[in-house]
Amino acid sequence: MSEIETRIAEMATAARAASRALAAMPTARKAAALKAAAGAIRAAAPAILAANAEDMKAAEARGTSGAMLDRLRLDDARLEGIAAGVEAVAALPDPVGAPIKGWTQPNGLKFEQVRVPLGVIGIIYESRPNVTVDAGALCLMSGNACILRGGSEALSTSKALHAAFIAGIASESLPADAVQLVDTSDRAAVGVMLGAAGLIDIIIPRGGKGLVARVQSEARVPVLAHLDGICHVYIDRDADADKAEAIALNAKLRRTGICGAAETLLIDKAAEATGARVVKALLDAGCEVRGDDAVRAIDPRVVAADDADWGTEYLDAIISAKVVDGVGGAAEHIARHGSAHTESIITENAETANRFLAGVDSAIVIHNASTQFADGGEFGFGAEIGIATGRLHARGPVALEGLTTYKTVVRGNGQVRP
Amino acid sequence: MSEIETRIAEMATAARAASRALAAMPTARKAAALKAAAGAIRAAAPAILAANAEDMKAAEARGTSGAMLDRLRLDDARLEGIAAGVEAVAALPDPVGAPIKGWTQPNGLKFEQVRVPLGVIGIIYESRPNVTVDAGALCLMSGNACILRGGSEALSTSKALHAAFIAGIASESLPADAVQLVDTSDRAAVGVMLGAAGLIDIIIPRGGKGLVARVQSEARVPVLAHLDGICHVYIDRDADADKAEAIALNAKLRRTGICGAAETLLIDKAAEATGARVVKALLDAGCEVRGDDAVRAIDPRVVAADDADWGTEYLDAIISAKVVDGVGGAAEHIARHGSAHTESIITENAETANRFLAGVDSAIVIHNASTQFADGGEFGFGAEIGIATGRLHARGPVALEGLTTYKTVVRGNGQVRP
Repeated sequence: MSEIETRIAEMATAARAASRALAAMPTARKAAALKAAAGAIRAAAPAILAANAEDMKAAEARGTSGAMLDRLRLDDARLEGIAAGVEAVAALPDPVGAPIKGWTQPNGLKFEQVRVPLGVIGIIYESRPNVTVDAGALCLMSGNACILRGGSEALSTSKALHAAFIAGIASESLPADAVQLVDTSDRAAVGVMLGAAGLIDIIIPRGGKGLVARVQSEARVPVLAHLDGICHVYIDRDADADKAEAIALNAKLRRTGICGAAETLLIDKAAEATGARVVKALLDAGCEVRGDDAVRAIDPRVVAADDADWGTEYLDAIISAKVVDGVGGAAEHIARHGSAHTESIITENAETANRFLAGVDSAIVIHNASTQFADGGEFGFGAEIGIATGRLHARGPVALEGLTTYKTVVRGNGQVRP
Repeated sequence: MSEIETRIAEMATAARAASRALAAMPTARKAAALKAAAGAIRAAAPAILAANAEDMKAAEARGTSGAMLDRLRLDDARLEGIAAGVEAVAALPDPVGAPIKGWTQPNGLKFEQVRVPLGVIGIIYESRPNVTVDAGALCLMSGNACILRGGSEALSTSKALHAAFIAGIASESLPADAVQLVDTSDRAAVGVMLGAAGLIDIIIPRGGKGLVARVQSEARVPVLAHLDGICHVYIDRDADADKAEAIALNAKLRRTGICGAAETLLIDKAAEATGARVVKALLDAGCEVRGDDAVRAIDPRVVAADDADWGTEYLDAIISAKVVDGVGGAAEHIARHGSAHTESIITENAETANRFLAGVDSAIVIHNASTQFADGGEFGFGAEIGIATGRLHARGPVALEGLTTYKTVVRGNGQVRP
């Protein structure tokens, strides 16, 4: 084994031991540890900001661009936000031990499925240093140990945040190995984590498409993530025009850079007037519209879409737009071009809505509301470690419950199997 | 792409299309199709038995052993069992569309998690031809399309069973592509299926440890399976001696070849008398006991265990036995040597039982009953496609519900995100 392989294996072994202690930890102790961690982060503000200043200086010296620098930067307000976020997680309901379902067999055996932590979670992320603390808090509250591997450009900041976090949890006698940071900028560490089947139970990447694509293609460990958020808004023939306009504009333009932003507008061929109104409203709001011939006929400002547009996540004020044949045509387009993230139908026809909601196979399907509700906070989960579009385990926003699995507890009074 | 890669890709594409139709299929139509399949299998009995005779003759000519020949063999009674099994699956509750939970946010958005099929399932199995039909029926009833790849030694039988099965479902207008059989003995097909990420959603291996180990090590597609069933029975100081003896004997000896059979007996150091009684009863019943020094002191017939015994799945009338320090010592031993399958504690002390049930992190944890209840039928699931010991998605016996995932349906009345 290489030095980094040995190091990750040692960390994972220590994490496994910590995860056993965490799995049986009462909610109150986990919450107290997180509150202590929030306090420790506040108390360590000078050291954390100084470490961040180092990272910023090095990034500037490398000529790092504005948006990336902004993601890296911490200040008093952002640090307070991080600490408050930890306290918010501490106040969430603890999923561990919660019963999922119970039943009794004729022989008297009582069965109960109860939630248990996943075990050891690997988090691979980029330059946002807040992930160090956010992910650590969510994993700890759900009874999981985690191994954090952040971007090297934020390593000093992450180390300072991590040191404060574990000092806080250790002050409440929780094992420091519950939340470990890979404190090297050696890029080989990511590959080793991705291959650590049996040592790490699941990998959650947090970052851009390049990172997620690498993780998905290389990982031998199961991955919880989404690669694309090609979200659709479908305007049905029975849509209310006011709702259609408000929802389409919000879905596309409220924030264009998030994964729940709409990227394609589908217009029922029998919703011509409403479709035209929405397309014009998008154009008037400064959105570029790339349409098929039918959409181009609505307004000369619409530019021609090519085939690649239907599978493109613009993350910008650009939307592709197409006329389809009713709800069936919309579902067909989404099945072919979508990314199984979030799709919304605008209609006043309940039967049509149900056809869409049942027939579209995405993690989140919405009737008469914006796709930008695809978010753990908006779901009422109180937090979010990411959004998953895979078919296994968890789909959509993942928070504490998504970080658990289950076991079956069987209670008998001496039964043997005939 | 090689010929077999092209073939599997074509099958998976057809399966995906069929899975969309199946996902929206009403329960009654799926049940009717399965009943028709059962009828078609009965009607095709002469052809199926003739095909089986061919497979048997070829196997005998290759010098195949008795147990393997027996697994391969069909007769009228076994064929009727297969047909009746399909009818039993048709009568099970349909998990697709079932609500898991629902809630409403303050902005009026209504959220509902509902079960949806996994999609396209690959089943890789060995010589038992009944898997062709059992797995096909479970996948179909849970709304999934499947691609079946059975052992080449049973290929003629599988083809005949499959032909009858799809003729039956097609007679009820279900797509024949819903259940496809890889009708070649080319061994490369397995490797291609294991690598078909994005085309096949999950692989379920059915067979011996060699097959499962290969599938787990090579697969790029998620796998639902268990490799080992190293199940433990722990006799606590507060055990009822009669229950302890009855359960330990049943757990080890009822059937020694199943994954839920106990392989290790753990005896609380403060349960000396009960432990001695159970060890003697096992020996008297013809079971070989491999013990540590403390267990060897009980009876001269106990042979010495070595370190490898604690991690061995005998699947035979052999049990390893060890004295441990209470429930904590038992949990520690199981964490180190177990396979996260099924473990049972025998005690009349409810608090001790709860410590074991909470602290042992296996898919199934049992109080005062035999480990041989680790079975979908005994759980009340009506069927079983396998037992999973991984941490993700489904754990323990997997039946219809384990073959589903979920999506979140959100219903609004025009909400946009602030």
